[in-house]
Amino acid sequence: MKTIDLNCDLGESFGAYKIGNDEQVLPHISSANIACGFHAGDPHVMNQTVQLAKKHDVAIGAHPGFQDLAGFGRRAMAVSPSDVYDLMLYQIGALSAFCQVHDVKLTHVKPHGALYNMAAVDINLAEAIAQAIANLDPTLALYGLAGSKLIEAGEKYGLNAVSEVFADRTYQLDGTLTPRTETNAVLHDSNEAIRQVLQMVKEQTVQTITGEVISIKADSICVHGDNSHALQFVQQLRHALTNECITIKAIR
Amino acid sequence: MKTIDLNCDLGESFGAYKIGNDEQVLPHISSANIACGFHAGDPHVMNQTVQLAKKHDVAIGAHPGFQDLAGFGRRAMAVSPSDVYDLMLYQIGALSAFCQVHDVKLTHVKPHGALYNMAAVDINLAEAIAQAIANLDPTLALYGLAGSKLIEAGEKYGLNAVSEVFADRTYQLDGTLTPRTETNAVLHDSNEAIRQVLQMVKEQTVQTITGEVISIKADSICVHGDNSHALQFVQQLRHALTNECITIKAIR
Amino acid sequence: MKTIDLNCDLGESFGAYKIGNDEQVLPHISSANIACGFHAGDPHVMNQTVQLAKKHDVAIGAHPGFQDLAGFGRRAMAVSPSDVYDLMLYQIGALSAFCQVHDVKLTHVKPHGALYNMAAVDINLAEAIAQAIANLDPTLALYGLAGSKLIEAGEKYGLNAVSEVFADRTYQLDGTLTPRTETNAVLHDSNEAIRQVLQMVKEQTVQTITGEVISIKADSICVHGDNSHALQFVQQLRHALTNECITIKAIR
Amino acid sequence: MKTIDLNCDLGESFGAYKIGNDEQVLPHISSANIACGFHAGDPHVMNQTVQLAKKHDVAIGAHPGFQDLAGFGRRAMAVSPSDVYDLMLYQIGALSAFCQVHDVKLTHVKPHGALYNMAAVDINLAEAIAQAIANLDPTLALYGLAGSKLIEAGEKYGLNAVSEVFADRTYQLDGTLTPRTETNAVLHDSNEAIRQVLQMVKEQTVQTITGEVISIKADSICVHGDNSHALQFVQQLRHALTNECITIKAIR
Repeated sequence: MKTIDLNCDLGESFGAYKIGNDEQVLPHISSANIACGFHAGDPHVMNQTVQLAKKHDVAIGAHPGFQDLAGFGRRAMAVSPSDVYDLMLYQIGALSAFCQVHDVKLTHVKPHGALYNMAAVDINLAEAIAQAIANLDPTLALYGLAGSKLIEAGEKYGLNAVSEVFADRTYQLDGTLTPRTETNAVLHDSNEAIRQVLQMVKEQTVQTITGEVISIKADSICVHGDNSHALQFVQQLRHALTNECITIKAIR
Repeated sequence: MKTIDLNCDLGESFGAYKIGNDEQVLPHISSANIACGFHAGDPHVMNQTVQLAKKHDVAIGAHPGFQDLAGFGRRAMAVSPSDVYDLMLYQIGALSAFCQVHDVKLTHVKPHGALYNMAAVDINLAEAIAQAIANLDPTLALYGLAGSKLIEAGEKYGLNAVSEVFADRTYQLDGTLTPRTETNAVLHDSNEAIRQVLQMVKEQTVQTITGEVISIKADSICVHGDNSHALQFVQQLRHALTNECITIKAIR
Repeated sequence: MKTIDLNCDLGESFGAYKIGNDEQVLPHISSANIACGFHAGDPHVMNQTVQLAKKHDVAIGAHPGFQDLAGFGRRAMAVSPSDVYDLMLYQIGALSAFCQVHDVKLTHVKPHGALYNMAAVDINLAEAIAQAIANLDPTLALYGLAGSKLIEAGEKYGLNAVSEVFADRTYQLDGTLTPRTETNAVLHDSNEAIRQVLQMVKEQTVQTITGEVISIKADSICVHGDNSHALQFVQQLRHALTNECITIKAIR
Repeated sequence: MKTIDLNCDLGESFGAYKIGNDEQVLPHISSANIACGFHAGDPHVMNQTVQLAKKHDVAIGAHPGFQDLAGFGRRAMAVSPSDVYDLMLYQIGALSAFCQVHDVKLTHVKPHGALYNMAAVDINLAEAIAQAIANLDPTLALYGLAGSKLIEAGEKYGLNAVSEVFADRTYQLDGTLTPRTETNAVLHDSNEAIRQVLQMVKEQTVQTITGEVISIKADSICVHGDNSHALQFVQQLRHALTNECITIKAIR
């Protein structure tokens, strides 16, 4: 029987600022990546979000990012591997404390935004991330873009490296995502997106924008919950997966 | 045989900004309180300071404070007990990660600056601090001002509550420190300060500014290392304690 | 002919975080208080908000606050008058630059949140605020709580001190607002709130929670635009004022 | 009679953190670039530094940088020209307020760190900087690396574009600085550095690391004051320039 993980970024509110519909999306996903206070989130939000995820029996992961609240961690920054190693430890440690007091296990780590994107192509940053996790707790899974340096680094350090795919993004012949600067980077039709996901999960292949079918490892699908359209898509996707007898289940 | 703990705030540098002489003071103390990135410190500094403390076999404590780098955590802020509970967990968790990768135990927690002072007199804040520590790891000791609400709260939550005294500050009849706004708040003569420490350690009493001798619990002495004068005083103090056959030793 | 100013806090979004419905509320108000990047707002938001206010011919004011984004500037902080003087200049200067490039005049300053509340009762902080404005540009009006120290300080420094009243808050016999901790602090019925405003504007009096009628100076009414209910109230209030032939007009 | 400007970055302290020897270097320079609170500096430090510069009759410039205190503004960040335009206005405006209350003119702007370096080679960022200054106050001079895009952009926008050279850095055949990653990037011998400066000022040429003599525009020399060695060099340089009858004088 096939299983797949649905993961979503949560806990991105900050002080008086609210982002996302965490409570609405939680019933539909299997894994939550919780912001750790650098690019988003704060101690109060982290505490609340860990409790919410626990209540919905959703696997909890750390979602560390750059210390750039103004840019929501989406701006590439010239950081060294050593910088990245330290910021990973700091943020994972901070989230761990909330897991500990709520007696729930931290299961995985997924770098956020620009850090995720930079580590997908820069092996030195990718290894700094993997090493931080391996040194801290080698039972933590590492989420990364399927086929990226982050997966390579995770495997090198003996971690459970989870290959993440995207429902609504198109792929190029070399397995990388079509850059958002291209017109055909995004699948706007939700049926098409669902068809792509089903193919990725069932056959571990994807059709590229130039028509070829290439193999892709799909352990987890990244979904969003920040607006009503996104929430609706998650429900549709969940329905489609269940119809195909694919169980939605966290990587544990 | 008498023992006493000498504790010092370390790891207060931030990015390009350097404060303190951590390497010089470490050989003379038994416990280090390491800043956790809110009022001072950053992930790199925390990593380095944990390693330095380990090298000198000095007990490592978290030194959490208000998220007010501009004010170095010294400005009182209107926070709720729930705010304090969350910021304690966040910061202790963050430091714990660095202890974990360097395979050294986190032994204690000492709130910083305005948080320390507010919790000394506000039982609700004091209990929020004690509860956070008790929920996270009840083997962690809690440092607080001798005779304060923080000690009371620590004991209520079953923690090892460590009574801290000050070498160079004068005491009032009710056991509280003379406020810094008063002219006689500080002992400027180092011999006098050493005499006060010896009395506190050997007899667990202190002479107040009005001349009475009152009892005081002295488990740990707070020392400083931010200038050459402070460093010299720590050495003198250490010498005086050793001469009296008092062993300088961490609370573990 | 009677006139009254309706002012609203705007430009409180930050990076990826959105707060308020600035575009919807702007047609209904006469003065905008724009956040300056400390408690809320960022350079991009400030630039956009100045342009929006100019487009709607709404008077532009600076809305400086404490450097506490995590607490949205609502937490009292132990600051000195000199701290306040400097943070006022910094933030007013920053907003001025955006006014200058868009060729629109900065007309007023209204301190935000905890800074506003503290300065209402602390004459030293109030004078630091008034002095900063007077030194920088004495033609800037200073908004403060009617009857507060801020109004007193503004007058002492020769500023146009604008007395602000609240539509939906109740008043005590001494002219101060009923604290929010009291159950009857807020008028929940919008008709009652409108009746209170009309009395304040037309007769410069208000009925206290204990039933007395006291005099109050009402130069400007503070309104909100952060939700649909608030937006609806602003429209109702505007309608009621217009019906009474009271012109809504900025203080210039 | 030849004149040259000596400029130095000042006001880089932050809260409890001190960097630089502003008071010692001020007597020796003609222009001060004052940090504006993003990469360094805070409102109090800005106020103090403006007063110090005024006292020493040194020309005052804004030194805006990235909002990255943790990295001291030295880390390249993926920012858009529009981001840069806004952060320039914000920071220049903030510093202007302190100049205004102390009745001293703001004379110039020099971008800091990574922003300076990025704008030296990226014409879009360079133009965003020049446009912000031109829109705000076209009488402000713009400092940039000699021969860089920043100078080109400044001239395009009709600004007084001031070409900055470095005493202790070596130059390549195309007029750019030898990257710091190269072993011969820095002139460690102060006599050599002084010789290079004299040649640049008197002949507007420089000898490259490969031995050629190329022309270079030298309007201002960047000096440092952060340690005793740097302070000593400034004095030597000043002496050498005076000996050659070159007057040290701000660009006004």
